[in-house]
Amino acid sequence: MKESPGVVDLLGVLAYAELSAYARMTEDAATLAPSLADRAALSELAVTEYAHFRLLRDRLVELGADPDKAMSPYVAALEAWHAQTRPANWLQALVKTYVGDGIAHDFYREAARHLDPSIAGLVDEVLVDEGRSQFAVERVRAGIEADPTAGARLALWARRLVGEALSQAQQVAAARPELALLLVEAGGGQADISRLFAKLTEEHSKRMAALGL
Amino acid sequence: MKESPGVVDLLGVLAYAELSAYARMTEDAATLAPSLADRAALSELAVTEYAHFRLLRDRLVELGADPDKAMSPYVAALEAWHAQTRPANWLQALVKTYVGDGIAHDFYREAARHLDPSIAGLVDEVLVDEGRSQFAVERVRAGIEADPTAGARLALWARRLVGEALSQAQQVAAARPELALLLVEAGGGQADISRLFAKLTEEHSKRMAALGL
Repeated sequence: MKESPGVVDLLGVLAYAELSAYARMTEDAATLAPSLADRAALSELAVTEYAHFRLLRDRLVELGADPDKAMSPYVAALEAWHAQTRPANWLQALVKTYVGDGIAHDFYREAARHLDPSIAGLVDEVLVDEGRSQFAVERVRAGIEADPTAGARLALWARRLVGEALSQAQQVAAARPELALLLVEAGGGQADISRLFAKLTEEHSKRMAALGL
Repeated sequence: MKESPGVVDLLGVLAYAELSAYARMTEDAATLAPSLADRAALSELAVTEYAHFRLLRDRLVELGADPDKAMSPYVAALEAWHAQTRPANWLQALVKTYVGDGIAHDFYREAARHLDPSIAGLVDEVLVDEGRSQFAVERVRAGIEADPTAGARLALWARRLVGEALSQAQQVAAARPELALLLVEAGGGQADISRLFAKLTEEHSKRMAALGL
């Protein structure tokens, strides 16, 4: 394999992130959606995550890596993230999709920034939103308008999502130094890692504002 | 609407059957698959079911029907079918996919036989297997080879699936006479409905033989 070891790590964690997001969003859609139309709208996002998983897995195979082996180090951390952020209702599910996936995507995109353009391009392709999650923004804003007390509860929920995401990311980085290294390089070296976190925070604040939170 | 009322009923039950099968197969894949590769293989089938749901929903909209209204009379029966046939392990999940979906598909295909060719064509399109479930057949055969006692248990499981399917189908037919009428017409009139059941039984026997059961 001519790629740096961090590439297989990044594609592996991202592939399992997409596979597990697909399963969880499908479940949230089936159990929490208030109508069949809402269920279909969230399922549509879930199926798109699956298509992204397929692209990442195929690229791993092209690189000569075993997709199962590349994903398996990340299964426990990502399942823990989902178990600790199981939405209790439809609006929480939508905030999780928009805010939780958003911050995770920012991480992956930053980690891919300094990689070979074909890898960075693939990562951008699977992470681009293309307005797909716009329906989540609209439903959450409408939900808060209908019940203003929901806003404060959802803002708390969003903070919890970010806290859990950072906690899982730290554990993954400690266990997989190759992956952590990509982020450090993306940040322009250890000294400048604060820039990276400033950027993640900025993007997160934009999403919270979009939701009206 | 120029179509007979049975058409909206048929597309409605089929659309919800695909939407619920997608969710259940996704869950079975995430919770029962013995490897990430197996999980991906069953998820691939699940995502195809979702694509079929999308085609059926779009056709309902084209016919001027409200998809949610068309599906909702069938939600309870199909959820009851899934609740009563929750697989306990990976091989049961695969047999459910192959045998359970198989008999359901035979029903829908028969019901569509005498409809307008554009409807019958759509139903054929979403029901055609194209070898997608071949992986289920291979895994089940390998599972029985590795553990011959599994065969007898899976044969019992398949009989239970058929029994539950017939029981749910009867309840749906009693509640939705338009749909039952399509089946009677497909059978060449009430007197000849036994031909229809003979055909369903024959197809089911072929699937059981393919599985080695």
